[in-house]
Amino acid sequence: MKLDLTNGIVSKKECENKELCEKVKEYHKILHSGDYSMGTTWVDWPNNFDKAEFEKVKELSKKIKAESDVLLVVGIGGSYLGAKAGIDVLSKNQGLEIIFAGINFYYEDLASKLEKIKDKNVTVNVVSKSGTTVEILSALNIIEKFMKNKYKEEYKQRMIFTTDKEVGYLRKRANAEGIQTLTVPTNMGGRFSVLSSVGMLPFACAGLDIDAIISGAKSAYKELLVDDIKNNFAYKYSAYRYLINKTLDKKIELFATFNTKMASFSAWLQQLFAESEGKEGKGLYVCPVTFSTDLHSVGQFIQQGSSIIAETFINVQKTKQNSVLSEISSDSPIKFLEGKTFNDINDAAFKGTVKAHIEAKVPVAIFNIEEINEFNFGYMVYYFEVACAMSGFLLGVNPFDQPGVEQYKAQMKQLLKR
Amino acid sequence: MKLDLTNGIVSKKECENKELCEKVKEYHKILHSGDYSMGTTWVDWPNNFDKAEFEKVKELSKKIKAESDVLLVVGIGGSYLGAKAGIDVLSKNQGLEIIFAGINFYYEDLASKLEKIKDKNVTVNVVSKSGTTVEILSALNIIEKFMKNKYKEEYKQRMIFTTDKEVGYLRKRANAEGIQTLTVPTNMGGRFSVLSSVGMLPFACAGLDIDAIISGAKSAYKELLVDDIKNNFAYKYSAYRYLINKTLDKKIELFATFNTKMASFSAWLQQLFAESEGKEGKGLYVCPVTFSTDLHSVGQFIQQGSSIIAETFINVQKTKQNSVLSEISSDSPIKFLEGKTFNDINDAAFKGTVKAHIEAKVPVAIFNIEEINEFNFGYMVYYFEVACAMSGFLLGVNPFDQPGVEQYKAQMKQLLKR
Repeated sequence: MKLDLTNGIVSKKECENKELCEKVKEYHKILHSGDYSMGTTWVDWPNNFDKAEFEKVKELSKKIKAESDVLLVVGIGGSYLGAKAGIDVLSKNQGLEIIFAGINFYYEDLASKLEKIKDKNVTVNVVSKSGTTVEILSALNIIEKFMKNKYKEEYKQRMIFTTDKEVGYLRKRANAEGIQTLTVPTNMGGRFSVLSSVGMLPFACAGLDIDAIISGAKSAYKELLVDDIKNNFAYKYSAYRYLINKTLDKKIELFATFNTKMASFSAWLQQLFAESEGKEGKGLYVCPVTFSTDLHSVGQFIQQGSSIIAETFINVQKTKQNSVLSEISSDSPIKFLEGKTFNDINDAAFKGTVKAHIEAKVPVAIFNIEEINEFNFGYMVYYFEVACAMSGFLLGVNPFDQPGVEQYKAQMKQLLKR
Repeated sequence: MKLDLTNGIVSKKECENKELCEKVKEYHKILHSGDYSMGTTWVDWPNNFDKAEFEKVKELSKKIKAESDVLLVVGIGGSYLGAKAGIDVLSKNQGLEIIFAGINFYYEDLASKLEKIKDKNVTVNVVSKSGTTVEILSALNIIEKFMKNKYKEEYKQRMIFTTDKEVGYLRKRANAEGIQTLTVPTNMGGRFSVLSSVGMLPFACAGLDIDAIISGAKSAYKELLVDDIKNNFAYKYSAYRYLINKTLDKKIELFATFNTKMASFSAWLQQLFAESEGKEGKGLYVCPVTFSTDLHSVGQFIQQGSSIIAETFINVQKTKQNSVLSEISSDSPIKFLEGKTFNDINDAAFKGTVKAHIEAKVPVAIFNIEEINEFNFGYMVYYFEVACAMSGFLLGVNPFDQPGVEQYKAQMKQLLKR
């Protein structure tokens, strides 16, 4: 993966200014202090992950693949966005079908998912670190009845709880009822947990090569061990983001891609950045867009609307399937596309869009990625975690907490307890 | 549908200020002048729609339903977002399956859709007013080969072009090759065209009651004929939007819903507003969010991040399916939910979220809708079209053009013609 800031409007020199460089050095020390208590277990995870747990994931996934057609993952926020991103981005149509439930309180959604899998063999993976998430436990109330009805008392052998090592309701139940468990590592927040069992079990069940994912992450880890903006391109991106917000007064960062499979990756990025940065009245609001689809909805606004938008493209250069346009009649408006492939056209659409948006003075950052595979996915995940942590630090907020998420839950509980 | 601005922060008095009231009266006159040339054919459409065309849609849909399992709609932007919204929101699992193609240049997406329908009976509906949209004609190049391979020379009887009455490549082809056509009305832009054949054919094929849709729109048309903010709640909403932008300096309007089916409606709203308003450096950037899912990604930012966000909720009060939580063990963290239904919880989540966000000084507008049905869908479509047109006028832009959308296309074509 390479970062191209040629069209970022803020200059390389500005990104590498003395004040930012000093701050970055200071925060780099905090990140790599070895004290995980603020929530930094993810920082050296690619190099230091729990090997026994990793092997357990592999063993469990073999058993699940032998017994089931579907893995029903019951998780919300950080407990599903990373897993969904990997599965959508890397989808290989091998391994199990992975379905995500517990992502809302809209019953029809859950009911239609259960209806869809009623005649299939199912394993359920409940993912909640605290074991108290209301969406998850509500969905589980229905899903357990579904499983019990399907498998009688043996259904518990088809349940896996991914939760805290020691505490919480799910851990307690697992201990009491002999339910299999995996562990969400201590001091690793949901949005930074995709390289733990939270993501790895669904990945392994979907037939993805989890060794390659962790290798990619490790490669990023090693590359990003340096503490200066000049040589650490995650920190360079953080500095750039800081400056488009502070000096160019941009309010929104669009994560844009012309590869529709990447949309789920952008959704993971949205949580990663919004939850890490959106504090103390600060932060760039992060939105995913998929082009050219969304050029036909928000394209007009990006081009000519309020000048509050910056764009970050994730450009995947090689794609798997392709086709050539042929037999185009001479009076067709697309005669000039004869002999071109969809990839040619998509690439021209990407380059044309960048050009058009630069002319409109939209700051454009581009990540060029050669192809989508497990190694690169692991690399990207770790890269953006580092970039996001540093972005939060530069803003002056704690990137690892999320106090604001509790407020709607507290209000909701009060209303329900009446 | 009712609009609740109690928590909108800007007061009713501010929304009804003299200057805004005068402007609204003036623009109302323009909207209803009867001169459609600026793109206002949609304004009295619910009362004045093309009856012969409407009957043709019904007849055609009967024929298609008798012959096919799938209607493949090939359209992008305004040529599919409204149709998709109606089908997702109202989905009845009766009628044909509707699949949308031509929405990008990512070949894998098109290939997987064709693979999915290869053993089904298919009718293709190509929707492009100009008949020149590159995404559409590129997809059509592949789709025609697929259809020809399946149905030999008879495939053209399974094609319908929805396009301009007289001009353009698709019209020309249809005339020359005897392909059936429907009409995109003159002076009706894509994002305002869902109540024409553009939306109506897919709706009728999906088994929706298109008479009820048009009745709902007509009911909104009649209610919104008054020219004063006090009595026209579309204009009230426009004035409110204008003020949260101008006086509260909000930059983003989130269209939020706790009903996951409404997500596609929000996507239609996104195009409607972004393309109508995003001009001359102006406009609120509009984003769809689906809760509680997205409370676990952007909830933190809304609660405590940059104070640039306003929220507009579409709250559907009655839902079709529901289930009660039961047999909850006494040590469960959700013991307090025993006997509650998912609707109860979702409603409490909605109310709790509104309360939490108001406390964070986020302006909140709420549309309360009793239930989702065809009549209400038609009503909502027309309502938001009026509100959007007036919003554009109040900003001082032409809500009916989209000059900025052409720029990436021009750049792209230049690159491809080299």
